[in-house]
Amino acid sequence: MKVAVVGASGYTGLELLRILLRHPEFEVAAVTSEQRAGRPVGEVFPALRGRLDLAFEAVDPAALAGCVELAFTALPHAASARAVVALREAGVRVVDLSADFRLHSRETYEAWYGPHAAPDRLAEAVYGLPELHREALRGADLIAAPGCYPTSALLPLAPLLRAGLVETRGIHVDSKSGVSGAGRTLADGYLFAELDGNCHAYKPGHAHRHAPEIEQEASEVAGGEVRVTFVPHLLPTTRGIATSVYVRPRTRDVEAGRRALASAYAEEPFVRVLPEGETPTLQSVRGSNFCDVALFADARNDTWILLSTLDNLGKGASGQAVQCANLACGLPETTGLLDTSCLP
Amino acid sequence: MKVAVVGASGYTGLELLRILLRHPEFEVAAVTSEQRAGRPVGEVFPALRGRLDLAFEAVDPAALAGCVELAFTALPHAASARAVVALREAGVRVVDLSADFRLHSRETYEAWYGPHAAPDRLAEAVYGLPELHREALRGADLIAAPGCYPTSALLPLAPLLRAGLVETRGIHVDSKSGVSGAGRTLADGYLFAELDGNCHAYKPGHAHRHAPEIEQEASEVAGGEVRVTFVPHLLPTTRGIATSVYVRPRTRDVEAGRRALASAYAEEPFVRVLPEGETPTLQSVRGSNFCDVALFADARNDTWILLSTLDNLGKGASGQAVQCANLACGLPETTGLLDTSCLP
Amino acid sequence: MKVAVVGASGYTGLELLRILLRHPEFEVAAVTSEQRAGRPVGEVFPALRGRLDLAFEAVDPAALAGCVELAFTALPHAASARAVVALREAGVRVVDLSADFRLHSRETYEAWYGPHAAPDRLAEAVYGLPELHREALRGADLIAAPGCYPTSALLPLAPLLRAGLVETRGIHVDSKSGVSGAGRTLADGYLFAELDGNCHAYKPGHAHRHAPEIEQEASEVAGGEVRVTFVPHLLPTTRGIATSVYVRPRTRDVEAGRRALASAYAEEPFVRVLPEGETPTLQSVRGSNFCDVALFADARNDTWILLSTLDNLGKGASGQAVQCANLACGLPETTGLLDTSCLP
Amino acid sequence: MKVAVVGASGYTGLELLRILLRHPEFEVAAVTSEQRAGRPVGEVFPALRGRLDLAFEAVDPAALAGCVELAFTALPHAASARAVVALREAGVRVVDLSADFRLHSRETYEAWYGPHAAPDRLAEAVYGLPELHREALRGADLIAAPGCYPTSALLPLAPLLRAGLVETRGIHVDSKSGVSGAGRTLADGYLFAELDGNCHAYKPGHAHRHAPEIEQEASEVAGGEVRVTFVPHLLPTTRGIATSVYVRPRTRDVEAGRRALASAYAEEPFVRVLPEGETPTLQSVRGSNFCDVALFADARNDTWILLSTLDNLGKGASGQAVQCANLACGLPETTGLLDTSCLP
Repeated sequence: MKVAVVGASGYTGLELLRILLRHPEFEVAAVTSEQRAGRPVGEVFPALRGRLDLAFEAVDPAALAGCVELAFTALPHAASARAVVALREAGVRVVDLSADFRLHSRETYEAWYGPHAAPDRLAEAVYGLPELHREALRGADLIAAPGCYPTSALLPLAPLLRAGLVETRGIHVDSKSGVSGAGRTLADGYLFAELDGNCHAYKPGHAHRHAPEIEQEASEVAGGEVRVTFVPHLLPTTRGIATSVYVRPRTRDVEAGRRALASAYAEEPFVRVLPEGETPTLQSVRGSNFCDVALFADARNDTWILLSTLDNLGKGASGQAVQCANLACGLPETTGLLDTSCLP
Repeated sequence: MKVAVVGASGYTGLELLRILLRHPEFEVAAVTSEQRAGRPVGEVFPALRGRLDLAFEAVDPAALAGCVELAFTALPHAASARAVVALREAGVRVVDLSADFRLHSRETYEAWYGPHAAPDRLAEAVYGLPELHREALRGADLIAAPGCYPTSALLPLAPLLRAGLVETRGIHVDSKSGVSGAGRTLADGYLFAELDGNCHAYKPGHAHRHAPEIEQEASEVAGGEVRVTFVPHLLPTTRGIATSVYVRPRTRDVEAGRRALASAYAEEPFVRVLPEGETPTLQSVRGSNFCDVALFADARNDTWILLSTLDNLGKGASGQAVQCANLACGLPETTGLLDTSCLP
Repeated sequence: MKVAVVGASGYTGLELLRILLRHPEFEVAAVTSEQRAGRPVGEVFPALRGRLDLAFEAVDPAALAGCVELAFTALPHAASARAVVALREAGVRVVDLSADFRLHSRETYEAWYGPHAAPDRLAEAVYGLPELHREALRGADLIAAPGCYPTSALLPLAPLLRAGLVETRGIHVDSKSGVSGAGRTLADGYLFAELDGNCHAYKPGHAHRHAPEIEQEASEVAGGEVRVTFVPHLLPTTRGIATSVYVRPRTRDVEAGRRALASAYAEEPFVRVLPEGETPTLQSVRGSNFCDVALFADARNDTWILLSTLDNLGKGASGQAVQCANLACGLPETTGLLDTSCLP
Repeated sequence: MKVAVVGASGYTGLELLRILLRHPEFEVAAVTSEQRAGRPVGEVFPALRGRLDLAFEAVDPAALAGCVELAFTALPHAASARAVVALREAGVRVVDLSADFRLHSRETYEAWYGPHAAPDRLAEAVYGLPELHREALRGADLIAAPGCYPTSALLPLAPLLRAGLVETRGIHVDSKSGVSGAGRTLADGYLFAELDGNCHAYKPGHAHRHAPEIEQEASEVAGGEVRVTFVPHLLPTTRGIATSVYVRPRTRDVEAGRRALASAYAEEPFVRVLPEGETPTLQSVRGSNFCDVALFADARNDTWILLSTLDNLGKGASGQAVQCANLACGLPETTGLLDTSCLP
């Protein structure tokens, strides 16, 4: 099946190419980039030289519709919505990696991102977290691949909220992310010399756009409003998110929490519940589509600690987008995604 | 004034030497190391070649007493207590960087560290956090330099607890530390290839030895029992701790919190309360004796977030030890410590 | 075809597992490790949890012979030779990643490594650089996978030496390597805090064991004795070797040099000659089996500069070993190896 | 003595401030930055908050002349020359950290940098390498602080060239630099995600602007034309340059080479000749004004290898500029510069 990557010159686009090049069913037939239109992929990304014999094109939804069945859109928000609409109208199935179709509420979207370019399409989009919405993703035509932070927070939280084992208020999500999460952004703060050996929180509280996304999905699974305090931090590394979530349990039975996690993920191919006592690491998930999770209790202080790690470009973006595409197209869900991380 | 560094071959010992070499009043007259006894300092630490013309000696408290007035002890716990006793009996003033004299309660110490070698001396030791115990430190003969994590948690927390502005339960301390905090420990987990690009929690909950230390000092300042959930993480960098503390406020008036911080630290030379909206970074404190702190509120979720950064080898260990020594010896507290961080 | 990885608990062993897990023809049927015998692979390498359901075994060549046709041996030198002999005697085809069978001359081997455990087998071994010895590798039973540094020096040098375009003396090989090249070695110098932000030469001149290996192969291709000065450096990163080779040209015609490289590698799947003016980077080859090469001239100073990059665990070790195994077993040479690097 | 830092918002400017803040004789009375004019220094550089109570000003040479005796100029080339002329005309002594006054030949300058803004001043400027030009620096009014790469190449080379012990052709200078050497440049290639774990050569041969600078000084000391092939590489770290120089000896007596180095630097405060067998490291010089050098021989291949390390912002820029200022102002040369590196 021929696919396109629209907006392929950023980090999520590049990771999509990397994954798709070893995918046995999807063939990359077109890659677009406004900035790099006309240049061969191997010239822009020397790592792909000899691997992908295509040149970047400008986005032309009609032309794409003539040659691909599925498109991954990895454009900035707003620009992505416009491309998605054109592609959908041309009959192309879309997995969108921007934030444009993640939030169901137009009001919430516009409060955080500004005017929505295609509010009528919001209801059509499926939130692309297979562990929560697998059935809806099968055959879906418009999929909103989740944000990296929300994926890292929701996977450990959802089973406990669903089982009613933890309070829905006073949840503290402390995330640490590699800088590729910010994309290839030219700003002082992303220069090597500024980040080397550095670490800092940013937008703490309820100020980051991923906070409402976490709350939307957490509330849905809990069957009632969930509120989270979210503090993202930047790590001096390129890939990976480590998230620590602090919740108040409604029970003293920590084994009930462990069972909820274990049964939720027993059959999941990409979520690994670690044995008791082990903590997830970035290294174990780097370059992969895995999310590792673990639960610890501080009974003395009436707190449970949920830990997760994932690769923000893998399960946090491009890997998960391909997982969703597999589901949408009726392929085995793990197709092309079982590669293990690049270690050490 | 002549001083000794006892156990000088680890990272805190080396940082002590670095600081003392530019200190105008203290002169390093002796350095000890069991492992490196007999070897010139400049051979073991090429960075100090040409700067310090001494050789490592084996520890001999009596001999040290003959040539120094003050000793910094940077030995592993238990070994440190034994050296401290011998030095004190020989009349040497001691700033101990181990954990041996930080906890007032022998029972608590022994639950976490094993038998105490000198329980009779516990009452004599002053906890070396000048911002909390400045008066007791003036002229003190036995000072326990605080742990790096406790310093990073206590400096932002103490003013709020003292003012009764936050709850004493449900406090979540999420710390991220560079690996020099683990000392020069030969273990797989500290190899470059294992930590490069890695990040993970360890000993989450109430399992790390610094948890009771935080609680001791926090309880003292709050005038009642304080309980913290403590989750340390390892960062892929060498120096620095970034701590995010989640607390429940007893007031909706976040300005009261900001005023408490501002007034507590207005005259402090080494604690900088950042302007509203700025978050502390590791880079701004690296190589220095500063601790930067900030307060953010998530009113929606009834949570305040306290952020701090410091250099675990600076304000978190050796810098603070020298600050205490200055106080003990009647010197201006900032002597030799106003160097700024090594940036970028 | 069932294969074993003997000595699988180091970095080259782990990389072999990572590659073999996505190889469509080889199936990992046994993994050995003296130290970790009895422990599940996923426990020792959390990244492989859920991917490989095997436990480490102690080495037992007879037992291995009963279940695999091919073994990759990744043991320390000398130990490797003993295992290789036992495996060969039991009829198992072997790709050895140690240094034991790389040097044809027993005398040279013993001068650098000490007594050889199986000198009679030296003549049987094929040096596993497919670009130089492809025909001999087809169907070979004992293959010595080359060292990482030699691969990085030989690939750019060989075509120029073979064509007689450069002098065979006064060759200066300046290599920079990530620390995984040293394996999982517990030594002070490999601790994170010692290498973070560090870089230094080691064993400069003709003191590193890879020097005679480079000279053996370079001399063979040149048809006369070649001498190299070799200065390896350690980089503050985990993976990758960047090598800069300084040679004196025998011609002023730098295009002749470029043509020699281009024609040598036009059909090679894993050596990419970069367009004029581009320099190879570690990022472009990280996680892959590619080696990127380029030629620059400083006509003013009568010097040509050959640049190469490769992943020391990929084309420099485990990737190349699988490439050789493919050749030995009659599979397409690129089977399982076309994955691109993990970027950014 | 009051001094100004003109163009203080880059990395060399920041490092100048860091050094000057602990200098007992120089007082920073003015800092300029066109881009940041009006903003407090502590706001732009949080690390300096509480340490320097000044705001950035726009450059106004006349105003500066009214309040300082000495200015360090750290502007881009061409802009620097214009500021230098205005400052000199106003009677201010200048240490210029740009390239504008390093090359004696206007023709050479213009071939590499474009039109010179003040060619008449070229003859007045002293090349600020104290180890070569100490006497001329005493009382000098216009000092051109050397480039970082030239300093790292010249310090090990000069004594051997002066003594006639090595050939003046076929010199290969292979340098590895941290990225702060490129300044705070907003370009894709300096983003964290592009450099993390990366390493690559750039401008190899005789294409980097520091090549003619090395040759100018090397030729002067050799008393005849010296030619170097220069290949700079970028390291995945922020600070430091490690340089390996390959030269052909005119003698087999390597001890003569060692003696030349030892006697040249026996009395030098900032050049340390390492004991035989030790290689210089970046860590040992990071944050300091030291340059460590060593000599190795590969007699078999008729090659000597000179190794050096320094901090590109220390001895390679700002530290050396202060060393020169000390000399110009008649202060002890080491004033304010004996701090040791920030380790680990």
